[in-house]
Amino acid sequence: MTAATKFTLTEDRIPTHWVNLLPDLPGEPLPPLNPGTMQPAGPDDLTPIFPMELIGQEVSMEHEVEIPEPVRDVYRLWRPTPLYRAHRLERLLDTPARIYYKYEGVSPAGSHKPNSAVAQAYANKEAGIERLVTETGAGQWGSALALACSLFGLECVVYMVGASYDQKPYRRAMMESWGASVIRSPSDTTESGRSQAEHTTGSLGIAISEAVEVAAGNEGTNYALGSVLNHVCLHQTVIGQEAMAQMEMAGDEPDVVVGCVGGGSNFAGMAFPFLRRVLRGDAKTRFVAAEPAACPTLTRGAYRYDFGDTVGLTPLMPMYTLGHDFVPPPVHAGGLRYHGDSPMVCGLVKAGLIEPRAYRQNETFEAAIRFARTEAILPAPEPAHAIRAVLDEAEEAKQAGEARVILFNLCGHGHFDMSAYDAYLAGKLEDPEFSEADMEAALERLPDAPAIA
Amino acid sequence: MTAATKFTLTEDRIPTHWVNLLPDLPGEPLPPLNPGTMQPAGPDDLTPIFPMELIGQEVSMEHEVEIPEPVRDVYRLWRPTPLYRAHRLERLLDTPARIYYKYEGVSPAGSHKPNSAVAQAYANKEAGIERLVTETGAGQWGSALALACSLFGLECVVYMVGASYDQKPYRRAMMESWGASVIRSPSDTTESGRSQAEHTTGSLGIAISEAVEVAAGNEGTNYALGSVLNHVCLHQTVIGQEAMAQMEMAGDEPDVVVGCVGGGSNFAGMAFPFLRRVLRGDAKTRFVAAEPAACPTLTRGAYRYDFGDTVGLTPLMPMYTLGHDFVPPPVHAGGLRYHGDSPMVCGLVKAGLIEPRAYRQNETFEAAIRFARTEAILPAPEPAHAIRAVLDEAEEAKQAGEARVILFNLCGHGHFDMSAYDAYLAGKLEDPEFSEADMEAALERLPDAPAIA
Repeated sequence: MTAATKFTLTEDRIPTHWVNLLPDLPGEPLPPLNPGTMQPAGPDDLTPIFPMELIGQEVSMEHEVEIPEPVRDVYRLWRPTPLYRAHRLERLLDTPARIYYKYEGVSPAGSHKPNSAVAQAYANKEAGIERLVTETGAGQWGSALALACSLFGLECVVYMVGASYDQKPYRRAMMESWGASVIRSPSDTTESGRSQAEHTTGSLGIAISEAVEVAAGNEGTNYALGSVLNHVCLHQTVIGQEAMAQMEMAGDEPDVVVGCVGGGSNFAGMAFPFLRRVLRGDAKTRFVAAEPAACPTLTRGAYRYDFGDTVGLTPLMPMYTLGHDFVPPPVHAGGLRYHGDSPMVCGLVKAGLIEPRAYRQNETFEAAIRFARTEAILPAPEPAHAIRAVLDEAEEAKQAGEARVILFNLCGHGHFDMSAYDAYLAGKLEDPEFSEADMEAALERLPDAPAIA
Repeated sequence: MTAATKFTLTEDRIPTHWVNLLPDLPGEPLPPLNPGTMQPAGPDDLTPIFPMELIGQEVSMEHEVEIPEPVRDVYRLWRPTPLYRAHRLERLLDTPARIYYKYEGVSPAGSHKPNSAVAQAYANKEAGIERLVTETGAGQWGSALALACSLFGLECVVYMVGASYDQKPYRRAMMESWGASVIRSPSDTTESGRSQAEHTTGSLGIAISEAVEVAAGNEGTNYALGSVLNHVCLHQTVIGQEAMAQMEMAGDEPDVVVGCVGGGSNFAGMAFPFLRRVLRGDAKTRFVAAEPAACPTLTRGAYRYDFGDTVGLTPLMPMYTLGHDFVPPPVHAGGLRYHGDSPMVCGLVKAGLIEPRAYRQNETFEAAIRFARTEAILPAPEPAHAIRAVLDEAEEAKQAGEARVILFNLCGHGHFDMSAYDAYLAGKLEDPEFSEADMEAALERLPDAPAIA
């Protein structure tokens, strides 16, 4: 084979700036709302839990934000990440499509999450903060923040969703190896936790409430969120910028960019640099967002203002939502089990620029196994959703006899998800259904916020 | 920081040849012995379980062996691997030493093992073999062979040491995800397994006996070994060759090369290309081999002819040994729990060219945690032994005020070893002792083979 498999950038090609898509978005950005007054939230609403630097990034209308050198210095531990041409998968599928993937699993935490964790830890350290508190579902974000805090000398406390805490002791051990304290949520360490004690297996929404409560109530302690917010999507754009340079090396231009969506950060990180080209009329790329059918926020949710957490401590955000107290069925893609999504991603779906698709759990694992047996990497359950969408795109290209160029974000490996593979191979993987009735009930409990025009 | 952290080679820098150290070794190579006749073993002794291509590599006196293009094509999925300068660790240690490490954990199986697994699977596929049988302890080798077989369309059967099978269900699931069948050893599927049924937790030696028995007794089925043999060490030399090119990029030359030793393959892979320079008088590098104090083959074993397996089915090899039926205490570095070692590595220790050192389990995990909290990567328990030796070298350099250049092989990550980290952090990690009495007893049961001059 003559064509390259792997497109490798040297260390000096790590981006110097993050790409901020906010000023390129059509229309005026919708502000978050103060949960008490339902009025637009300002910096004062956020200073108890975030440093000014990140609040500034959250609302910045600059097209690019410079990456601080100490952050780039940590990025050097694993970035630039490789971009692959999936020759073997293409042959298996007998498709004329050319399939490329960016692999973020080479980070020490095994996913894209450290791209933002490092930026957040640094901004907080610079602001004199001593401790960060966060939540984690599957454990990817908690691991990433534990790692980032260990590198910048910050304490780290992670509220881990009860069901994951019980099922994934190795993720907990990973966070503890990097020096973090891990607390099972709901816990009795917070009012939020005590008020939700009957939900013994916990949820991401409850764990967020606990972490926000601790950050808001303690001097020197801040909160860190691993997805959803604008500044998190911003930090992840190193992915798409590198991918763009690597696609140039490959001499190809993507016709379609695919990613999975939970809170939206890995999708945004890959897609936003390419989306800016489309918004400026310089390209005609399509974008596909893959989500679990058991938690189909983008395909079935209501486009409304809603809280980011279960208890209702966070500002309200304009997004597709299944209701802030909706508890998604226990699918293994824990990182995709969130009732809402990034407001920026949601706005782009609403505008028709991103096409959402929902997939069942078993069909995503079937795709993951086909990928692993040809491309060798065992994907995490979250990007397995993206792979499922890629197989469909490749099949469409085959039917159409079209040399479609597909690029997707393989945002993490599945080393901590082998029990799910085990269940799939044994034919015992549940395929839980989304309950329209549960969602309807959850939507009835939405806060009384203004409708979105 | 201006100095680079990561030295990255492009895909075209994957070596085209493996380095064969055999013709450069001092003295005549000692032949393996037929276990029945105690006479030098020839190709006929090996054809029932190995293809001719690998037997040829085992005894080759060529200085270099060309890597088949389909093998290099698979290497492209993760090679070249990165080489790092450990700036952060150096600062933590406040040492004038410059520390570099080659990271093999980026392979899809998480260790260096696929370098040989792919070469072996390809050679067997070319010879018309349909199925490979092997053993695995910690699971690194079994995973690697399962992966390689999936890529070349071979069946794969793995006999997994009972204790690991029970403690590491996720390693089993990984092998099964790549399509392998995994059998708990000792099993009732072989005579060897039935004869050792009382050793319920199994051992690497027993699992080897089972796999060799199946391979020898079935047409179209061969055996694959993950370490010890010359051809396995040969395949791993891609590591040292890449490292040499990367050290040139860094503008440094190692004063000392460090690796852990179980069967010897990762150590040989890193060291042999550098050792060849020393043997030819072109360099004065030192070499340090780190092993567990609970299984101190190189530091405490007898230099004798012994079997590679427990039952006594394999040829006898000249090596340091603790006795082929010695069962090492259950330390977490399962990949280092082997009674013998690569004959080539043993000969070099005997000749004084490699300096062996033994470390206790707790001190290796202490080193691993210090590494993880500065360099971010969570090492497997096996290379944690190498890290322990590196910390000692760096401290010596500090005492001597010497800018010593240290290079080590970080041969795998610890994602499947988090229960060991968990035990260490909880202060519950056992620190089992080597039993001189057990070894003496095992040595008394050595085969009646000629002494080594």
